[in-house]
Order: sequence, then structure tokens, then C-alpha cells
Amino acid sequence: MFIDKLIESIKAKKSPVVVGLDPRIEKTPQFIKDVAFKRKGENIEGISEALYLFNKGIIDAVYDIVPAVKIQVAFYEAYGIEGFKAFFKTAEYAKSLGLMVIADVKRGDIQEVAKMYSKAYLQNQLFDAITVNPYMGEDTIMPYVEDAIKYNKGIFALVKTSNKGSKDIQDIKTTKGEYVYQSVARMINRISNSAIGKYGYSSIGAVVGATYPEEAKVLRKEMPNCFFLVPGYGAQGGTVEDIMDCFDENGFGAIINSSRSVIYAYQTPYWKDVYSEYEYAQAARAEVILMTGMINNGLVKRKYIAC
Amino acid sequence: MFIDKLIESIKAKKSPVVVGLDPRIEKTPQFIKDVAFKRKGENIEGISEALYLFNKGIIDAVYDIVPAVKIQVAFYEAYGIEGFKAFFKTAEYAKSLGLMVIADVKRGDIQEVAKMYSKAYLQNQLFDAITVNPYMGEDTIMPYVEDAIKYNKGIFALVKTSNKGSKDIQDIKTTKGEYVYQSVARMINRISNSAIGKYGYSSIGAVVGATYPEEAKVLRKEMPNCFFLVPGYGAQGGTVEDIMDCFDENGFGAIINSSRSVIYAYQTPYWKDVYSEYEYAQAARAEVILMTGMINNGLVKRKYIAC
Repeated sequence: MFIDKLIESIKAKKSPVVVGLDPRIEKTPQFIKDVAFKRKGENIEGISEALYLFNKGIIDAVYDIVPAVKIQVAFYEAYGIEGFKAFFKTAEYAKSLGLMVIADVKRGDIQEVAKMYSKAYLQNQLFDAITVNPYMGEDTIMPYVEDAIKYNKGIFALVKTSNKGSKDIQDIKTTKGEYVYQSVARMINRISNSAIGKYGYSSIGAVVGATYPEEAKVLRKEMPNCFFLVPGYGAQGGTVEDIMDCFDENGFGAIINSSRSVIYAYQTPYWKDVYSEYEYAQAARAEVILMTGMINNGLVKRKYIAC
Repeated sequence: MFIDKLIESIKAKKSPVVVGLDPRIEKTPQFIKDVAFKRKGENIEGISEALYLFNKGIIDAVYDIVPAVKIQVAFYEAYGIEGFKAFFKTAEYAKSLGLMVIADVKRGDIQEVAKMYSKAYLQNQLFDAITVNPYMGEDTIMPYVEDAIKYNKGIFALVKTSNKGSKDIQDIKTTKGEYVYQSVARMINRISNSAIGKYGYSSIGAVVGATYPEEAKVLRKEMPNCFFLVPGYGAQGGTVEDIMDCFDENGFGAIINSSRSVIYAYQTPYWKDVYSEYEYAQAARAEVILMTGMINNGLVKRKYIAC
């Protein structure tokens, strides 16, 4: 079952950190672009190759210390066919090193269409889980839930997202005296009952932004079944203290994604004097170790986990 | 400007009908599969070729009588790289015959990611417009709006969708005494002010399901700037009477999509004794002509347009 495997991997790696593979060609080290462009030409193929090679370096550097990677499909989809090739190759490489792979696709559509998205990602052995958008309602989520159960996969439904604009729709106050994201949360938590694993969590989880700690605290109580995929840590502004309430009292219940802060760690003030661009992958590893240490330290302070 | 071009095309073709290219391999005529499988093998490549050949037949049969086609990406995305090739080839072929192409992708994500989706579709000359999901808020829509203005493209944001489950989130009552979809509508209508064309409509439109005529009537008034892309007609249950309130008093304001009822018209009770599967494209043309006639007749009855 997806969620049991995820929890066991978090335990084994002693880390709830997920590395987000959101590569941008303009931030890719020149030496990687040189190799890729020489191999495939200075074109879409070369760009896609560079993104893949960049990812491969990151994966090699972190596969033994994180349970999963999250691949944001848009960074590949932007380059069409060649981009998708890099997306699939990245997933394949991550899986080959034992990582769980979350395809961050945020798809959502009517049932007949959702079935096709589910075929694309949940029925694809390269991916362990996907993110989905709940705006169109429960019937549009069910095809993913059915496939999650059938193929031992997971889904994370958007509940309260990390961006500023998440207030526009998600924070609308309803006549039930709650916010829209709480209504979504209740719907997802109810659906998640159908896929609960041996540790009490469901393979149907939720996306809850690191940037809204108060909301996360409420949601942790209102969605007891649901593991949280937490974006927004690091570059988007979320801190260790902000994410603590995403966890339960045993230190589970959340995986914390960081993309830019990890994969471009070598460009940050903290690491730029230590690592050159040639060492971008070591910098990413150092940042993951730092981030994991800080999060685990936060959990120890809360007495959620032992030292 | 996208919306002006769309309106002029509706006038020129005398039809607000959009054909949805949502091909399913299991419903594809055998003679097409035979050709495709012989050419590419009985595999993903062959399936994708069959979907493309099927679409090509439909496009050849309807390009002179409809302003646009809507291509639902999931039906291609399900087949990975090869599927995407068929998706792009379909768009290219439709454009080559002067059709406007709406990529029904329903993407939605934080700004940095939305920019990449916009690069994938709005910055791609194959597509004239895309559908987007507003759940994550205004800041996640703006990258599409900026590109729509810059590249003369359009967007249709989900407001009230055609499926039954659309009630779950979209119909939540808010403390303002309205429904969530009305809050979304207000947000989109406000955003749409930045892209109004010479006929008074904006290149920023809305998806409003044919299956909810009462809601559409309200939304037509609350979103005066916004053209509606109306799914749900035909196979999903929407009738001519259901969609009339999507139009304004001049007979504009909406394009009506039909997918299954058109592309598989030859299998419907109405046409199956007239057309064989070899004539699936003629059947699609006949259905489009019938549908256009019925809609235009409805508009005449309302005195929105002259005979």
C-alpha cells in the first residue's frame, strides 16, 4: 500500500523531506548545458537533456537520504515532447534508485477524463502518487481513488495551497461557519477512509502549504486520516516552526517538499561560498541534510520523536 | 485578439459549435485501427496514430462549419509521449485548415509553475486558448492572462462545471449569500477587464456547464465580459433549451462544445442506421449541422438572431 510504503521509507531514511525536481534551464549550471547541448544540440532536445542530467545529479546525491522526489510536470511540459521524455526519464532514474516518485500534476476533470489522467500517471509504474485538484468535486476524484487502491498508489488533493492567492477561493467563509478549504478537507478525509493502511493513515492525502501554519494546525485535526504533502518550505517562505503542526505526535503525518532551496542550494547565501556550480548536487545533499536535521530537531523539541 | 477572432469566426461559420476531439481507442472504427496498426504496430504508437487519423477524418469533415475544436489533452496524455505527439499533430492539422484550437488542459498551479504551463500552451502557436482551474486563486491565473494579452490567446476558467459533483465545492453557500462558483465568477469577470475586445467580450472567458441552466442564467448576468465555453451538451445531458441563457441578446456570448455526441454520432440511435463506421466523419458532420441548426433555431425563437 502506498501510504505504508511511504511511512516505512520515512522511517528508514529518517527523513520526511521530499526533494522537488523543478529544474529551470536558465538556472542550470553551464557545465551541464555544455554536455547536453554538445550531445543533443542547443535546442529543445538539448534543453530537455540538460534538465534530465541536472536531475540525475540531484537524485544521485540525495537518493539515500530522502524517501521521495516530487517532479513538477510543468517544468517539462513546457518543452513539449522532449520535455516529457526528460520527465519520464527522471522518474525512471529516481525509481531505479529506490525513491518513491510523486508526479505533481494537479489534474482535475470530469470522470471520463479523470480516468485518462489516472491511466497516464497512476497506472504508470513510474509514479507512486499524484497531486489532484478537487474544485470539480468528489466524482472527479473517485477515478484516482479507485486506481490508488487497485495499483497501490497515492493521491494528494489540493486543500490549502502555499501561494498568497490561495485565500481567494480557499478562504471564502461558508454558511457552515468554516472556510472552503475546510469543506474540501472534510470531503477528502471522508473519501480517504477507503484506503487506510496499517499505520492509520490513508493513501489519499492532502496538499497543505507550509506558509499557512494556523490553517495546517486546524487541518491536522480535521483530516486525521490524511498524510500531508507540504509545499512552500524554504524559497516560498515556510519555516521549520511553520510546519510542525502538520505532523502528528509520533512525528508522522507529513512530508515536506522543498524544490528551489534544495536543487539550487549552491546559489543561496548560505552555501554559495562552500559549493561551486560544479558541486550543485553536493550542495543539494548538504541542504537536505541541514533541512532534515532542522525538521527532526523541531520534532524532538515537540517530543514527537526521540533524539 | 483571441476573442474578436473567435466571434468573427462564429459569424463567418454561422455556428457557435465547438467539436471536442476526445477520441477513445476502444470506440475507434476498426478500419482506422487496421491502417494505424499496420503502419505503426499494435502498440502505443499504433494507438496514437489511430487517434490522430480518427481526428483527421473528423477535422476534414467539420472544419468549414465550426469555428473551433477543443482537444481534451487527457485522452492523449494517457498514452505518454506518443499520445502527446498525436495531440500536437491534431492541433497542427486543425490549425492548417483554419480552425481555432482550444487545448482543454484545466491546468492550475502557483505562479512559477503556471508560467511553465503558459509556455507549454499559450506560447505555443498551435493553440489559441486553454482552460484553467481557478481553485488556487487569482495570482495563479495571472500568468495566463498576461500571455493571453501578449500572444493574442484566450483562457476559459472553470466556474460551474457540467458534472454532478460540481455541487460539492462550487455550490457551497458563502456568507455573502452566494455560491462559491459566483465568487469565482466575480474574480474571473474582474480579471477579464484587462482583455476586452472590440465586441465587448474579453479573451478571458469561463467554463459554464450546459447541465446547469439556472446557474448559467445567473452567470450570464454576473459575467458580462466573459464568453462561455459550454461543455455538457449532448452525451452529458445538456439540451438546446438548457444552453439558451448562456447567450446574450445578440446570440453571442457562448460556444457550445460537444464531443462524444459528434465524434461518435455514427453509433447513436439517431444516426446508426444512416451511417456505417466507415462514414463516422460524415455522421459527425451531419450531427454538427443538426446541432448548429437546433441551436440557431433556439436563438431565433428567442429573437436573439434573425433567420
